[in-house]
Amino acid sequence: MRIRAHRRFVLLLGLALTMFTQSFETLHASPAASRVSAFKLANGLQVVVVPDHRAPVVTHYVWYRVGAADEPPGVSGIAHFLEHLMFKSTDKIPSGEFSKIVARLGGQDNAFTSHDVTAYFQRIAKDRLKTVMEMEADRMENLRLTENEVTNERAVILEERRSRTENNPSSILSEQMLASFYQNHPYRIPIIGWMHEMAKLSREDALTFYKRFYAPNNAIVVVAGDVTVDEARRLTEATYGPLKPNPAIQARVRPQEPPHRAPRRVELKDQRAGNFSLRRFYLAPSIPTAAEGEAEALYLLMKVVGHGSTSRLYQKLVVEEKLASSSGGWYSGTSLDSGTIGVHAVAAEGVGLDKVEAGIDRVLHEVREKGVTPDELERAKKAFIADFIYESDSQSALARRYGEGLLLGLTIEQINNWPVAIAKVTADDVKRAAAKHFDVRRSVTGTLIPVPPEAEGDAATKPAANKT
Amino acid sequence: MRIRAHRRFVLLLGLALTMFTQSFETLHASPAASRVSAFKLANGLQVVVVPDHRAPVVTHYVWYRVGAADEPPGVSGIAHFLEHLMFKSTDKIPSGEFSKIVARLGGQDNAFTSHDVTAYFQRIAKDRLKTVMEMEADRMENLRLTENEVTNERAVILEERRSRTENNPSSILSEQMLASFYQNHPYRIPIIGWMHEMAKLSREDALTFYKRFYAPNNAIVVVAGDVTVDEARRLTEATYGPLKPNPAIQARVRPQEPPHRAPRRVELKDQRAGNFSLRRFYLAPSIPTAAEGEAEALYLLMKVVGHGSTSRLYQKLVVEEKLASSSGGWYSGTSLDSGTIGVHAVAAEGVGLDKVEAGIDRVLHEVREKGVTPDELERAKKAFIADFIYESDSQSALARRYGEGLLLGLTIEQINNWPVAIAKVTADDVKRAAAKHFDVRRSVTGTLIPVPPEAEGDAATKPAANKT
Repeated sequence: MRIRAHRRFVLLLGLALTMFTQSFETLHASPAASRVSAFKLANGLQVVVVPDHRAPVVTHYVWYRVGAADEPPGVSGIAHFLEHLMFKSTDKIPSGEFSKIVARLGGQDNAFTSHDVTAYFQRIAKDRLKTVMEMEADRMENLRLTENEVTNERAVILEERRSRTENNPSSILSEQMLASFYQNHPYRIPIIGWMHEMAKLSREDALTFYKRFYAPNNAIVVVAGDVTVDEARRLTEATYGPLKPNPAIQARVRPQEPPHRAPRRVELKDQRAGNFSLRRFYLAPSIPTAAEGEAEALYLLMKVVGHGSTSRLYQKLVVEEKLASSSGGWYSGTSLDSGTIGVHAVAAEGVGLDKVEAGIDRVLHEVREKGVTPDELERAKKAFIADFIYESDSQSALARRYGEGLLLGLTIEQINNWPVAIAKVTADDVKRAAAKHFDVRRSVTGTLIPVPPEAEGDAATKPAANKT
Repeated sequence: MRIRAHRRFVLLLGLALTMFTQSFETLHASPAASRVSAFKLANGLQVVVVPDHRAPVVTHYVWYRVGAADEPPGVSGIAHFLEHLMFKSTDKIPSGEFSKIVARLGGQDNAFTSHDVTAYFQRIAKDRLKTVMEMEADRMENLRLTENEVTNERAVILEERRSRTENNPSSILSEQMLASFYQNHPYRIPIIGWMHEMAKLSREDALTFYKRFYAPNNAIVVVAGDVTVDEARRLTEATYGPLKPNPAIQARVRPQEPPHRAPRRVELKDQRAGNFSLRRFYLAPSIPTAAEGEAEALYLLMKVVGHGSTSRLYQKLVVEEKLASSSGGWYSGTSLDSGTIGVHAVAAEGVGLDKVEAGIDRVLHEVREKGVTPDELERAKKAFIADFIYESDSQSALARRYGEGLLLGLTIEQINNWPVAIAKVTADDVKRAAAKHFDVRRSVTGTLIPVPPEAEGDAATKPAANKT
């Protein structure tokens, strides 16, 4: 039922686009951004209010500053498992009733877990806001778990891993690539967890994690919608105000990457693969770790190189050279400790992956050497505005943008100023970013090779690498 | 001054060979093994006595059940750093005097750190044994560290990393390969630590680690030499006996590997490389994790495949096909959680690494399909005996064998029975082990490519992989 960000790159990319494209527009066109307010309760809870009076509805988010990358070694998946278990009981809410109550109130709710955050949200009529705040405040402090609930829900997450990862060679390849890509950082570990560790997750693991990380001084509440700042202050004081802060909450310090010195390759042979395909990830800075303007340049670079059917990768590989049936690329900058650039292609019928890869390399080489044209840059910037116009209709996207921005350490002002920062990017900035960050030494390349079942275990010989 | 096991595979392989080859002989020829005794003090300290009365000297080892794989995330290198700092002061020993005192007593001392153990040892005249025991017992409980000592010694380990790793492309390649190879287990992390984490190691980090892991109930004392069991008991009671156990010591549980599904490749271009070379690691069971007889079969397999100039790899690649100037392989089974098989070759002048790799693959393919001959198996078994005869002259090797065996969870009897287990291995066992464990899906292949300095950063394009 709930959405979960296992495909971190894809989902976070989506959020990222949402974030700054919205900012761009709000600065110029939307009345909302200029009136975004933030305050803090005495117990440390941060509150952000994003007015949107188009309809008498609100979107209510609780963002916890904890995700899969904060898990202790050996209990991978516990952040996501706890997200599931948060829908069990408290003294006031019977087991499994949380979402049903929201539905009976006419609302929808959901939750997701990434490496950096765990978030819960409801969209509901404005006169029900206090009720869902009470419910979220209640489960922030009073979660109850029985052994039975834990056992049953563990079966659910194991099944989730089976259906989303184990049965999906593309997911397996990405998972194996990330395990090779990050040498020290917990971004290496899948958000849903390793199967053998998930199978052992216990009630005690969940409650330990809950008590350590779930507290008002480790959370951000975002209310977007038909609400004033005064109302929001009164409601949050009344509901979240009485919660006790956890004095043990600390700044998040996760092990960081050493220098990457050597390109890596991962090859997965799978009978279920369907097509020959190739993808590559490059380690890059993220919004919080980038130099000024660098993340913005990377977003624009990858818009030109990899976004949609007008992108360079698509035009070269699919349209002109007919090496690939699809190709593209992206930049994800919305992680706390590092970002990622990705490129990918599916080989055209009968074309070897070595030729496809050489085609990708030619595109990347050219942009490193010559950068992008003023025209391309202008179009990329405009594309963000267009994206924004589409996205700004979504109250939930507005709420996400501020919640995630604050989690990344940005101020409201910095979030609002994203479009200004994007507008400042020059073609030189983009060329410099390309030259610096398309560095194969900081990359992992993965290939997915369809084979007959018996050949999956044909394992004595070397990886076929680029020969298909 | 001190030896440290950064090159884990090489050193542990040496220890492993030592371990069971010695056992083989001692069972039949040496009077020592049959009289090996073990007892435990009330505070939990395990003591092993290995009589060797050929000369009035003793080798005294303290093995701590802690190594680099027990480090908390983010403080890589702390186990090894603490090993250095153990040579600072206590109330009784002035700073830096430990080794000098041993030397003045006519002895030698040293220490090393692996992923699984930290060990300290002295070789000394038998009438000085009590003194070195007092000194080891003293620093097990009373280590003092000043900020100054920590700062100075940190400069020493950083320099050690620079000279052993940073200046050595082969070490860098192995380090990058291991980071790709292990997906979840801390064996991924270099024993000496990542530079950026070593640079932050503090006095507090060292003392926290010390207090957590250094205690009599987390140590094994091995005394080999001119000593009786009664003497050893009296001496250990008098010196180590008064130490307090640490009730917080727990069984060692480290995060284990998920299934490996896709072969990995790592390519390092380095101007200092000298030669084109290739190596591959396969994940394998270790002595403690293997099925009965499996580790023994792997030792014999790799003796046939990779040990010395009569091995299959050397004969095929160097002598017959002239593809390589050297080639070989090994099995390392003396780690707690998993073992490793390694193969390697240096390309002959003008030969591409793709041809070298294909040559290795032919050798491995053949042994998977056809196994080893009765003759080869017999010679491999005999080689262990020959190794033993050479090694058994070393009192220190005797002490190591029992210390390490107990750390791996073996009983004295199991250690003594190694040669029997080796003798039982059949050609079928070896073939089965080859077929099962030469599985490229559980492997990482590394290539080292000498390039002109300017080409190290030639990083836009894909790894050259097998093309040289």
